[in-house]
Amino acid sequence: MAASTPISRTIYIGTFAHSISLTELEICENGVIGVDENGVIAFVEKELDLEAAREKHSWQNATPLHLSRNAFFFPGFIDTHTHAPQHPNTGLFGKTTLLDWLQTYTFPMESSFSDLKRAEIIYRNFVSRTLSHGTTTAAYYATIHVPATNLLADVCLARGQRALVGRVCMNSDLSPDYYRDASVSRSVADSKASIDYIRSIDPKGSIVRPVVTPRFAPSCTSEMLSAIGRLAEEEDAYIQTHISENKGEIALVQELFPESKSYTDVYDTANILTPKTILAHAIHLSNDERRTILARGSSISHCPCSNTAITSGCAPIRELLDEGHTIGLGTDISGGFHPSILENVRHAIWTSRHLSMQSDLGEKAKLSTEEALYLATRGGAAVVGLSDKVGAFEVGMEFDAQMIDLGDVENGGSNDSQFNAGPVDIFGWESWADKVEKWVYSGDDRNTTAVWVRGRLVHKTSRYQKLQPNGAATP
Amino acid sequence: MAASTPISRTIYIGTFAHSISLTELEICENGVIGVDENGVIAFVEKELDLEAAREKHSWQNATPLHLSRNAFFFPGFIDTHTHAPQHPNTGLFGKTTLLDWLQTYTFPMESSFSDLKRAEIIYRNFVSRTLSHGTTTAAYYATIHVPATNLLADVCLARGQRALVGRVCMNSDLSPDYYRDASVSRSVADSKASIDYIRSIDPKGSIVRPVVTPRFAPSCTSEMLSAIGRLAEEEDAYIQTHISENKGEIALVQELFPESKSYTDVYDTANILTPKTILAHAIHLSNDERRTILARGSSISHCPCSNTAITSGCAPIRELLDEGHTIGLGTDISGGFHPSILENVRHAIWTSRHLSMQSDLGEKAKLSTEEALYLATRGGAAVVGLSDKVGAFEVGMEFDAQMIDLGDVENGGSNDSQFNAGPVDIFGWESWADKVEKWVYSGDDRNTTAVWVRGRLVHKTSRYQKLQPNGAATP
Repeated sequence: MAASTPISRTIYIGTFAHSISLTELEICENGVIGVDENGVIAFVEKELDLEAAREKHSWQNATPLHLSRNAFFFPGFIDTHTHAPQHPNTGLFGKTTLLDWLQTYTFPMESSFSDLKRAEIIYRNFVSRTLSHGTTTAAYYATIHVPATNLLADVCLARGQRALVGRVCMNSDLSPDYYRDASVSRSVADSKASIDYIRSIDPKGSIVRPVVTPRFAPSCTSEMLSAIGRLAEEEDAYIQTHISENKGEIALVQELFPESKSYTDVYDTANILTPKTILAHAIHLSNDERRTILARGSSISHCPCSNTAITSGCAPIRELLDEGHTIGLGTDISGGFHPSILENVRHAIWTSRHLSMQSDLGEKAKLSTEEALYLATRGGAAVVGLSDKVGAFEVGMEFDAQMIDLGDVENGGSNDSQFNAGPVDIFGWESWADKVEKWVYSGDDRNTTAVWVRGRLVHKTSRYQKLQPNGAATP
Repeated sequence: MAASTPISRTIYIGTFAHSISLTELEICENGVIGVDENGVIAFVEKELDLEAAREKHSWQNATPLHLSRNAFFFPGFIDTHTHAPQHPNTGLFGKTTLLDWLQTYTFPMESSFSDLKRAEIIYRNFVSRTLSHGTTTAAYYATIHVPATNLLADVCLARGQRALVGRVCMNSDLSPDYYRDASVSRSVADSKASIDYIRSIDPKGSIVRPVVTPRFAPSCTSEMLSAIGRLAEEEDAYIQTHISENKGEIALVQELFPESKSYTDVYDTANILTPKTILAHAIHLSNDERRTILARGSSISHCPCSNTAITSGCAPIRELLDEGHTIGLGTDISGGFHPSILENVRHAIWTSRHLSMQSDLGEKAKLSTEEALYLATRGGAAVVGLSDKVGAFEVGMEFDAQMIDLGDVENGGSNDSQFNAGPVDIFGWESWADKVEKWVYSGDDRNTTAVWVRGRLVHKTSRYQKLQPNGAATP
């Protein structure tokens, strides 16, 4: 369904959970949410039943959608950093760390995207995958190829997934001969071509928007970074890049940019740090660098699965939050091993616990469940510039949501050896807080039975059940 | 199917992978494995086709079972430490660490197993769950209740899952009034009753065996520990307990046992450390303690998901392996948040990477993929005393195996938004080493489409496919 086609007014009835602040998760057990023809939330009632809500808002004709017993609505996840072309390498990294991993796995895979047929299979697969994990918005790195980058934007628009889509810029000697931009001017022209295309297919940017994407400092010459900074300013575009992921990388940046005070200074000098800049990783920043990033209003994408998998380090997220940084979560496929933000919610918590165990920060380092869920939704929304539109169920926001449906323990416990409802067992005595926590710590994509973006259904599984008011399932 | 009922000779044809040493994973692309009437592996051919193998071994009448294209056999997993009654709390721990977590979640749940009906639902569910994750052998803690403990053994025997089943002993003041053994003599008598029952239902112990289970030092008085040590000796039984999980716990042990040199010394004094003893966690041991454990021949269950989840610490597994300790993996439900050993394979690797990043051990701390898979299979087999029987595909071993079937990327990548084949995407160009690595890092129970113990099929999903020699599926 095209993103601009009007939809019918729908009233969603059942339990919903969402972050109302960094530290507070609200669970509303009897929610009634009205979504209008544009996918915008017209009302949220927490005390009224369906009929009273219809009456109050004069929405007698709206279609009701009731949840089944163990189901609840949660805001769609926001993936603030991922590399769509690397998905075929998901789960492959052997014994590598960042710099050899790039040469062994990443560059050969990305260079193959000169083949559009191959690109189409991988991008269709990956967008389907991320939607299936409840990701309603993603910030994608593509490759250096304009046609394949544009194709990724087409796929996102067709599937209705909100996306920032960026053609990757890289021209330095770190990039292999077979995979780099031929010159700075060519890189800028190609980036501009992709920006123009993406703006042509979605002029209002309601689903897809371009993002200027210098890979990371070691992949770019100073001249390139400055040219990219100018392009982003001229185009008033988002920028995404990597920063301070790995100690070897930081040493390399120092060597390649001897005139710069720090990794952050390399970007700052090139006017890459803006309020529309997304910096992935930010693990080993000095206090000076953190202050600069905060002063420029740039934001941070925390990628805990990736940081653990390729042994990059533990980003001090609790401290960065205290300092006032804007932070979301990123899957960073395929440095990360899982395209699910829920998996990264867990790993954000685990990583903070490792920091807590192994540093003198102690309890102060720990992220709570509530905080990690905030990062996955409202935090991510702020990172990609959508904090007024998505991330929670509030009047005036657009309805980007996932239906989470948990399994019942059946047949005296045996479940006939089948667990099609997913990995979570609900015995029947759990509170709603317990149910949500069980989902957070042991749920997966099987529990995400339906996904909406702007009120449009963009993914459903065979377990998706809309219930009639009488409790019967609607086919 | 009863464990002793003879089965028909079967020949398993396809790729298999298993550990041939701590550091080597063998992937045999064209394997032919013959399993006899008792479930014992009669031959393993790596160079012959089915007909040549039939001929060589005069097995013309055996039933062939061919694997589909993206499927392979892997040894069943061995869970060396888990608490079956705590499964309803899987994924619940909030902000607790060990000692408050026990009081908040664990003791109230376990005490409810005085209700046998409730116990039956939970145990049937949990044994089904662990089988669905490919666990063919588990060392279970039950509760203090004899009837419910015996029921757990019944369920394991009925489902054909190998198990050590232990009635929990606990009599100290740490245990709440409502959930503790009334006296030492009562505890010993109850443990004996459960041992006798379990040996009566499976006299040869080919599927279920009893295990003497003092909860952990803080739950037991010195008198209790000594009595338990004597019982285990008299019964020539396995022992399982916890050691050195959490710093608060270690301080408590010091306080409760002021005459002991260390946590390890508490157990050693009570003759609890034997070659048949399984010690869970072993995170913060001194060098002295490690030497004692090694000298006694006791083994270690590493529970990385649990250790991260309740912020216990990172066990130095690489060092312990170098010292010669016998080590397997444990899910430690519900301190651990996942009943899957595959999830713990990943977390063993992540935990070792955190140790590597945050200590001066560097690369030396890291566990490789091969090592973690060894711990999950052969390492675990050694821990539970089955290293001659299970953990690999070798002649004379029993066939405890899982069929791992990975998904194909279909329909030009879109998969119609359905991912019933599981979380792994196979594009078709992957090597077998890549396929196995993708499974290790991003697979789940959906990929475990069938499970055998002693040649008996004990779990299958709707995706389980046995192929005819011509490649067609058999219903």
